[in-house]
Amino acid sequence: MRVLVALGGNALLRRGQSPDAAVQRENVSVAVTALARLAENNELIITHGNGPQVGVLALESAGDANLTRPYPLDTIGAETQGMIGYWLLQALQNALPGRQVASVINQTLVSAVDPAFEDPTKFVGQVYERAEAEKLAEEYGWTVKRDGRYWRRVVPSPAPQRVVETRLLRRLVRDGVVTVCAGGGGIPVIRNDRGRLQGVEAVVDKDLTASILAEALEADVFMVLTDVPRVARHFGTPREEEIAHTTPHRLRAEHFPAGSMGPKVEAVCRFVETTGDMAAIGRLDEAEQILRGTAGTVVTPNATWPLASTL
Amino acid sequence: MRVLVALGGNALLRRGQSPDAAVQRENVSVAVTALARLAENNELIITHGNGPQVGVLALESAGDANLTRPYPLDTIGAETQGMIGYWLLQALQNALPGRQVASVINQTLVSAVDPAFEDPTKFVGQVYERAEAEKLAEEYGWTVKRDGRYWRRVVPSPAPQRVVETRLLRRLVRDGVVTVCAGGGGIPVIRNDRGRLQGVEAVVDKDLTASILAEALEADVFMVLTDVPRVARHFGTPREEEIAHTTPHRLRAEHFPAGSMGPKVEAVCRFVETTGDMAAIGRLDEAEQILRGTAGTVVTPNATWPLASTL
Repeated sequence: MRVLVALGGNALLRRGQSPDAAVQRENVSVAVTALARLAENNELIITHGNGPQVGVLALESAGDANLTRPYPLDTIGAETQGMIGYWLLQALQNALPGRQVASVINQTLVSAVDPAFEDPTKFVGQVYERAEAEKLAEEYGWTVKRDGRYWRRVVPSPAPQRVVETRLLRRLVRDGVVTVCAGGGGIPVIRNDRGRLQGVEAVVDKDLTASILAEALEADVFMVLTDVPRVARHFGTPREEEIAHTTPHRLRAEHFPAGSMGPKVEAVCRFVETTGDMAAIGRLDEAEQILRGTAGTVVTPNATWPLASTL
Repeated sequence: MRVLVALGGNALLRRGQSPDAAVQRENVSVAVTALARLAENNELIITHGNGPQVGVLALESAGDANLTRPYPLDTIGAETQGMIGYWLLQALQNALPGRQVASVINQTLVSAVDPAFEDPTKFVGQVYERAEAEKLAEEYGWTVKRDGRYWRRVVPSPAPQRVVETRLLRRLVRDGVVTVCAGGGGIPVIRNDRGRLQGVEAVVDKDLTASILAEALEADVFMVLTDVPRVARHFGTPREEEIAHTTPHRLRAEHFPAGSMGPKVEAVCRFVETTGDMAAIGRLDEAEQILRGTAGTVVTPNATWPLASTL
């Protein structure tokens, strides 16, 4: 089967961990142990988050006295694709001798008139006192908003339309290459009024990009791998209950917080609705069981849909 | 024809320029104007330097108080492959509508017993006072050496043996994809005593890596593009004389400074000797003329070898 996996950002750097390279590489090594097992019997495409890594590099760039202005988000996103892409590439090559692995730079096209550009909502980078935030907003053209007691930069999170290099990725996957791609949801670009690709100061939700890429690459299964075993309804209440198998229709009837499970649920529902194939959300280290339908929250077009294990 | 181009680091950031993203992107745009003309009638593979960019990111990482220790050189090299790879990718896509372009992460295998590891010679990063340099050496296991009045970190510059992803690159080139690869000479890796790829704190000469890659990808022409029109003998003396056409044998009889023209000359000589094909050193904006044999220093196996223009 062809499987596209979206690795959560916390698979690479857990909350509270130091962002040292050695820490992240150790996490990559653990993640790749699970991914390599998937790759043994399947065509595997791997996408990944980059939120914490963008945070580290953006902060460094903002403090760099040699720069007139900090590096823009598209450039920093590209840096994280190189860095995380290298770590995954090397670990996968070591875990899968004889297999070819590729790690490629990807852009994700968004609409220049996406309403998100009118109303930036995604907090990025560090917190500031109000006066400092307003000074930076003036200096760099940032939009800043209150985030609790402090102020932070906000950027638009437009909807992904297409991974620009989809044809290239299709070619690699068809040739049996284990492919690391679309890191951080892809570097967000628009087609400007001259018809040219142009990077924008925005972030694209990595799970939504993974969803449209899984569709474009005709993946049989789309898996969002994170650190929770299953999606839970009534999360954090006494009525909390894990969902083992559901449909997009039923899953959409639940309500999930926008900041955490919401985009993952949207991403898997969209894939299942669009393709009629199977998607799932679950723990990275249970990826194989999820594929067999014995772990995770498995989402299929209808309740009687045969699970992958029975195909 | 299949042409592999090695872009000099100063094509992206000239001495004295601010390392701002906007400045480098403008330089990339100029470079791609020349490269796109080459791509119109040829299969094109592009490699590039990353010296100044590694300097910027290494300095930022060294000053990052959130890190226990600065990011190692392999990781920083990977970041620059992502960043520069993205800039080139997007500019090439804009300049070559309808063509497929790929920007891929590459490692370069070096020998774990390369003598360079015993005697690091390549200065990297900023200068320090002696006491500070020795403290950093103690703290991070660096080797430091005197560089003029100050002290600096030195790292090994082992010989490139093979770009790890050569098979992948061959596939892309054969399929007509304009390919950006092996940035900064590739991320240096060894095969360790467990047979696994492992990044090392070293830098690989980008022109030498480009040379062995050009050979492995069966390029017809290997071009080192920089900001000088031709290699000159007796450079900087009253007897200075530009060389228009030469052979490896004759070119090796001249003497060039190790830090500047030396590795470029070694890289082109090696390619011509190994393959019997043509190589050249010259200005980026004269790339088309160089290919026709009317600009640059063209190196062929012997003095009567037909230039590309007459093939």
